[in-house]
Amino acid sequence: MLFFTQCFGAVLDLIHLRFQHYKAKRVFSAAGQLVCVVNPTHSLKYAPTRCAAAQTSVEQSVLPSCHHHEAVHDPQLVPCTCPLFSCPWEGHLEVVVSHLRQTHRINILQGAEIVFLATDMHLPAPTDWIIMHSCLGHQFLLVLRKQEKYEGHPQFFATMMLIGTPTQADNFTYRLELNRNQRRLKWEATPRSVLECVDSVISDGDCLVLNTSLAQLFSDNGSLAIGIAITTSKVHNAEDEM
Amino acid sequence: MLFFTQCFGAVLDLIHLRFQHYKAKRVFSAAGQLVCVVNPTHSLKYAPTRCAAAQTSVEQSVLPSCHHHEAVHDPQLVPCTCPLFSCPWEGHLEVVVSHLRQTHRINILQGAEIVFLATDMHLPAPTDWIIMHSCLGHQFLLVLRKQEKYEGHPQFFATMMLIGTPTQADNFTYRLELNRNQRRLKWEATPRSVLECVDSVISDGDCLVLNTSLAQLFSDNGSLAIGIAITTSKVHNAEDEM
Repeated sequence: MLFFTQCFGAVLDLIHLRFQHYKAKRVFSAAGQLVCVVNPTHSLKYAPTRCAAAQTSVEQSVLPSCHHHEAVHDPQLVPCTCPLFSCPWEGHLEVVVSHLRQTHRINILQGAEIVFLATDMHLPAPTDWIIMHSCLGHQFLLVLRKQEKYEGHPQFFATMMLIGTPTQADNFTYRLELNRNQRRLKWEATPRSVLECVDSVISDGDCLVLNTSLAQLFSDNGSLAIGIAITTSKVHNAEDEM
Repeated sequence: MLFFTQCFGAVLDLIHLRFQHYKAKRVFSAAGQLVCVVNPTHSLKYAPTRCAAAQTSVEQSVLPSCHHHEAVHDPQLVPCTCPLFSCPWEGHLEVVVSHLRQTHRINILQGAEIVFLATDMHLPAPTDWIIMHSCLGHQFLLVLRKQEKYEGHPQFFATMMLIGTPTQADNFTYRLELNRNQRRLKWEATPRSVLECVDSVISDGDCLVLNTSLAQLFSDNGSLAIGIAITTSKVHNAEDEM
């Protein structure tokens, strides 16, 4: 049994490497703002073969999905928060960032305001564009996901999660801004904690949601630029006049 | 045949009056801003019996739907732009506002910034919330529509149209803003002309789009407050730095 588990593991690593290939990243600065080119990754998390394999490989131990993190024996340990892969890793919250960088090759960027430039928006769902953003002494995970909630009608969902606890997350406000073709769309909210699971945030629709036609209006040559800014909540509350 | 047409007309007028009953409007001022309470109106435009009756009543003459305004014989005449009812009226653009006020009882509000408070958001689709807004020497039509693009999944679509030509519309920018529960969503765009038809703007999704869960997050006790501001485009272009 252990032999089969290891075989599955090797196959999964190969699949993983295959997709890492597409995650090349280029960073440049335009008009004083850091522009980060983020290439898409086809999400493997919900592919049926991958799920079955992942379940076999961990042999009835704690599942790596964030829906199951209540079942972790040591309350200090959290499962892998990578939205792309079902990964059996678990560890302390402080080392989640290094796990995401080293194992899942998710890039990290510094700066209060950056532009996230997602390429190849035409690729079929499910597809994810992911980056980590280091700002104000914390790390955030930005996820743009193309998903078909209604069959044949893909939508784009963008959200920002704090790699920290929900209490820490309450101290921040993030803003996502699209601006093109005489249209501007801004979404501001308190980031959710990665402990709350990106999948449930997206299935609840509590994030920036774009239909395909709106995504096309905001895209330039197949790429979507999302301006990102993070502030502390105190600043947000002072501004909070409608 | 003329007798039947007139009978149909009388029945339609009664249905129309029945729905006018629900369009009572209250206006009050809160924190220096004009708050306009807009009650819903069940859209009759796409009810099959209504469409068939309207077609009979106009007896193969020009259809009142805006999709057909190219067929108007006098190019100076425009069809009724009311998004609620298929109405056989046509007239000059300058008298559209008085037609909408007098025949369709759509209220008009003055002021550069107003709050549109849509009540009874839980009512089933198709439902419309409509008001006219007089500002910067022009009149705008604000439409919030609850519609099921995907069966069983109602969405909310909000847009602002200029009661004027597309060239006149290009001189303005409108902003719709939702702000509640530590979330803020802003949509800014150039208004479309009423000659372009509100239905096609909504079916294209080129407007503020809200799914049900997001609408609930922004609602208070079943009412959704939308802050509205209109500016001239020159101001918008100067601000247009991302």
